[in-house]
Amino acid sequence: MDYSVDRTTLKRSSTRLTLLAHFFGILSVILMLVWLLHYREGIEYDSDNPARVFNVHPFLMFCGFLFLVGEGMMAYKTVYGSHYVQKVVHGMVHMVGLVLGIVGICAVFRFHDMQRLQDMVSLHSWIGLSTFILFCLQWVVGVVTYLAPKASTGTRVGLMPWHVSGGRALLYMGIAAALTGLMERSTGLGIDTRSESRLINFTGLSILLFGIFVDFSVALSRYA
Amino acid sequence: MDYSVDRTTLKRSSTRLTLLAHFFGILSVILMLVWLLHYREGIEYDSDNPARVFNVHPFLMFCGFLFLVGEGMMAYKTVYGSHYVQKVVHGMVHMVGLVLGIVGICAVFRFHDMQRLQDMVSLHSWIGLSTFILFCLQWVVGVVTYLAPKASTGTRVGLMPWHVSGGRALLYMGIAAALTGLMERSTGLGIDTRSESRLINFTGLSILLFGIFVDFSVALSRYA
Repeated sequence: MDYSVDRTTLKRSSTRLTLLAHFFGILSVILMLVWLLHYREGIEYDSDNPARVFNVHPFLMFCGFLFLVGEGMMAYKTVYGSHYVQKVVHGMVHMVGLVLGIVGICAVFRFHDMQRLQDMVSLHSWIGLSTFILFCLQWVVGVVTYLAPKASTGTRVGLMPWHVSGGRALLYMGIAAALTGLMERSTGLGIDTRSESRLINFTGLSILLFGIFVDFSVALSRYA
Repeated sequence: MDYSVDRTTLKRSSTRLTLLAHFFGILSVILMLVWLLHYREGIEYDSDNPARVFNVHPFLMFCGFLFLVGEGMMAYKTVYGSHYVQKVVHGMVHMVGLVLGIVGICAVFRFHDMQRLQDMVSLHSWIGLSTFILFCLQWVVGVVTYLAPKASTGTRVGLMPWHVSGGRALLYMGIAAALTGLMERSTGLGIDTRSESRLINFTGLSILLFGIFVDFSVALSRYA
């Protein structure tokens, strides 16, 4: 009997997990929009209302940055085309995510300026900024090694386990940053906002499940 | 030329990463003890002082549960002995972690009772408890499948990718639970506790690095 891993079953499972990742990703986007538009004062970068400026931050960091990071990671599953096309999409989607992330980070600094609050005080900010900086580094190394100018085959193969494990660690670091950010926000809310704090919890749980299913989908497709 | 992954180099890297995981694990334990013993009122389950009862929770959830979870995951790297011995240690260390985790969870419920606070309100509690329940499930399935009574070889091989990916997801969920817990605590502190809040941030960062290096160490040793 053949006792190696059944690749067909794993591939099918991986596809189902990709669908689940999309479900929770989109659910998180919807929940976050309900939170920011219905419970909070909306989203606007150039506003005089600090609350609206602040809201750009969670919106772009998840719906822009983290969601696209997940999509980029799953590009090898979701994009129909040659391996090269998948690779270019993988890099491009991450780049768009990075740009939106930069705007999102600027938004929270602008909010701090408006409110005369100190920057980089909370655990959330420490985790978030270090994740983002390491992410930029991973992106640059990835492009230089795998897209253009491309390293030698030996280097490309040798770096792959680090690229994969590093990417996954960064995904989970991003999730941890998102969850500590939501936690910071919901701890600040009082008891009279029970339904809002429950909405924030569901958003956080959904973001966590998005991350887990992205990881599962990528990991199982690499086994298969 | 041979372009497959260089297994010897990866194995050596994996060993270095195991050392780094230990460094950050032990650093986290020390930082947490400094926090709870020096800045807070100490650790005691049977105290009349609610603060001391509460402190049992972060102490046991990281220094008991999460630290041992990481150690259990790395048992295949750190335990010198047959594969069977490593497997038994892997299961046993996780079991000890689980038992300490149960005591840690009881401590926070006892604290809530003493303070007449509602249970299961925060995002931290939602993430933490679901992680813990899923962890118990993973442990039971793991023991039944791989230790005793042991499933058929086909099932064991087929479940392995799920056991590995699931275990990793649970590790990161545990890290996310720890970080949201620290975040909840430090958001509650005022500006006059700047040095304490910085200590909490360093503890959180160290816990995150512990998790990442455990994941890296296990992942690279599986590549090799």
